[in-house]
Amino acid sequence: MKNENRIEGRNAVIEAFRSGKTIDRLYMLDGSREGAMQTVRKEAAKQGTPIKYVNRQRLDQMSETGRHQGVIAEVAAYSYGEMEDLFAKAKEKGEDPFFVLLDGIEDPHNLGAIIRTANMAGAHGVIIPKDRAVGLTATVAKASAGAINYTPVVKVTNLVRTMEKLAEQGLWFVCADMDGTNLTELNLKGPICLVIGAEGSGVSRLVKEKCDMVASIPQKGDIDSLNASVAMGVLAYEIVRQRSL
Amino acid sequence: MKNENRIEGRNAVIEAFRSGKTIDRLYMLDGSREGAMQTVRKEAAKQGTPIKYVNRQRLDQMSETGRHQGVIAEVAAYSYGEMEDLFAKAKEKGEDPFFVLLDGIEDPHNLGAIIRTANMAGAHGVIIPKDRAVGLTATVAKASAGAINYTPVVKVTNLVRTMEKLAEQGLWFVCADMDGTNLTELNLKGPICLVIGAEGSGVSRLVKEKCDMVASIPQKGDIDSLNASVAMGVLAYEIVRQRSL
Repeated sequence: MKNENRIEGRNAVIEAFRSGKTIDRLYMLDGSREGAMQTVRKEAAKQGTPIKYVNRQRLDQMSETGRHQGVIAEVAAYSYGEMEDLFAKAKEKGEDPFFVLLDGIEDPHNLGAIIRTANMAGAHGVIIPKDRAVGLTATVAKASAGAINYTPVVKVTNLVRTMEKLAEQGLWFVCADMDGTNLTELNLKGPICLVIGAEGSGVSRLVKEKCDMVASIPQKGDIDSLNASVAMGVLAYEIVRQRSL
Repeated sequence: MKNENRIEGRNAVIEAFRSGKTIDRLYMLDGSREGAMQTVRKEAAKQGTPIKYVNRQRLDQMSETGRHQGVIAEVAAYSYGEMEDLFAKAKEKGEDPFFVLLDGIEDPHNLGAIIRTANMAGAHGVIIPKDRAVGLTATVAKASAGAINYTPVVKVTNLVRTMEKLAEQGLWFVCADMDGTNLTELNLKGPICLVIGAEGSGVSRLVKEKCDMVASIPQKGDIDSLNASVAMGVLAYEIVRQRSL
């Protein structure tokens, strides 16, 4: 995520917010109480942009211009979609909704590969959280092999609340976890949202509690998990297979 | 692949060869005819190590010690297996052989994810070519999430000849390509070798000609291919599904 679409300096960052740019993350100098910094914080609060407080050394390392003035913003390289776009896409294709919800994917290559696979498998969109997750950076766009231009990615503040709303709209949730049912034995037809957990920690407890089904990918070897984007691909294509039956 | 397990300097490289270390690739100064360089070339020829001739500027950039003396070797971080290991693994588990053959994967993250998936899906080993492909570097080992310690990886000089020999031993070859048959409509039971092509160019013509089946992964979106490791995962788990029927 280095050096991608970064904006440095107070005024530049405030301007970026006001022009409507999506800022994925803000790095701010810890302890700074100056007026302009308060303005930056206010704009961030309006957009719900997460702020990471760091020390001067860290900001100096990140800075390309050497004139960060205590604030560096990471701007999304691509624009995000809205939840309505996903439903519209399903309707347009005359299909039951098929969404992918990511619970904290941090590796841009994984996010890119997942958007690519979502597009290939005919999913109508991808949902990611604002916090503790990578956004639509240039690396993600590259790893998506162009899929980012077709498959809408929606960024939400609260995954659990989003799941509750989607459940009201008739979606079923299936997450991947080791203690689940063999994926081929589940009924994955109908309106579905595939939930993929973070690399390492997996699906968080609150998100898992909102899932209707837990799918496990057969473990035939010595290790116990797949790369997040590979797991997503295996599950997405089980959905494709069942939909075609 | 930067800075991973590199050995620099003529004597150090000659020693590495003689001690039996597997050298994945050799970078040599173009045009150098000195005696010690001839010795390096001879050792490389014995092991079938590919040599890449580069200019001094390139070697200087690659060098960490600043004393490369015209030669830098990339050493495998992990040791390779033998073809017999793969058959032994299948026999030991009382299963039909299930191998994965990679036709020129160059991205270490992809190779790592493929070894990881091969292990999870119960494949008995992975076959890679000596030329134009990444070897078992530290990045590959990390991306394999430990699977590299369990799943043997065999390095062969000529993929086509290897396929001919494996066919004699009863293996069937299925490769992934766009113009194939929907993967779920193929019979993927029995002794099988899954063939995955390179990231951009896909399966090469000569390798494809040796395949008994061409599987295509349904394309439901706007783009036309998956990430190599995701495609491998989708196909590997279709084999797992069919074997369990």
